[in-house]
Amino acid sequence: MIRCNPQLECPTNLLLALLSGPWTMPIVWSLFEEGPARFGALKRRITGISSRLLTERLRMLEAQGFVDRHEEKTIPPQVTYSATERLRRLCQALEALGAVADEWHANYLLQHT
Amino acid sequence: MIRCNPQLECPTNLLLALLSGPWTMPIVWSLFEEGPARFGALKRRITGISSRLLTERLRMLEAQGFVDRHEEKTIPPQVTYSATERLRRLCQALEALGAVADEWHANYLLQHT
Repeated sequence: MIRCNPQLECPTNLLLALLSGPWTMPIVWSLFEEGPARFGALKRRITGISSRLLTERLRMLEAQGFVDRHEEKTIPPQVTYSATERLRRLCQALEALGAVADEWHANYLLQHT
Repeated sequence: MIRCNPQLECPTNLLLALLSGPWTMPIVWSLFEEGPARFGALKRRITGISSRLLTERLRMLEAQGFVDRHEEKTIPPQVTYSATERLRRLCQALEALGAVADEWHANYLLQHT
């Protein structure tokens, strides 16, 4: 869709597919906008998400380089999740895309009402 | 997908759907990167596109505020197509998103080969 070689899988389409799973973007936006959080606090930020799904999504986002998991060697250990530089650049790009889309959509609605 | 109210249509998803039609993005990138062009020149830039489809896409992109159509009152009239500010901001956002996707994808391939 972006500027991909039609023969090859387009990285941007693959990334958008990865991020389009349920609850993924609310987690991404929460870490981007509200900053680092421990598991419980993050769960409270995202009303309705189950612990199982939040665990799953955090593991995936960490494996894909979008979330940093920091463990303090306290007893019990304290784990904090935060946005990586890659997540910040992703959200900045999506915000810019969203701004264009919002402006286009507002005009579109004007033309069609 | 971005930060939309699930109950409402997400402008960014709508915009991406609008732009995902065949040949649309090659036209968008050509005007963004190679600058204004008349119909014939634009057709030559985009190998394989039919005149009918190029006409259709240009009309749609103009109606949606992404392409400017300028007509010189010469005989015969000369029409030049160019990128609007909205198209430039769209491409800049997509480039930023593409850069994140390329970096993520390169890492992903490393992890899985």
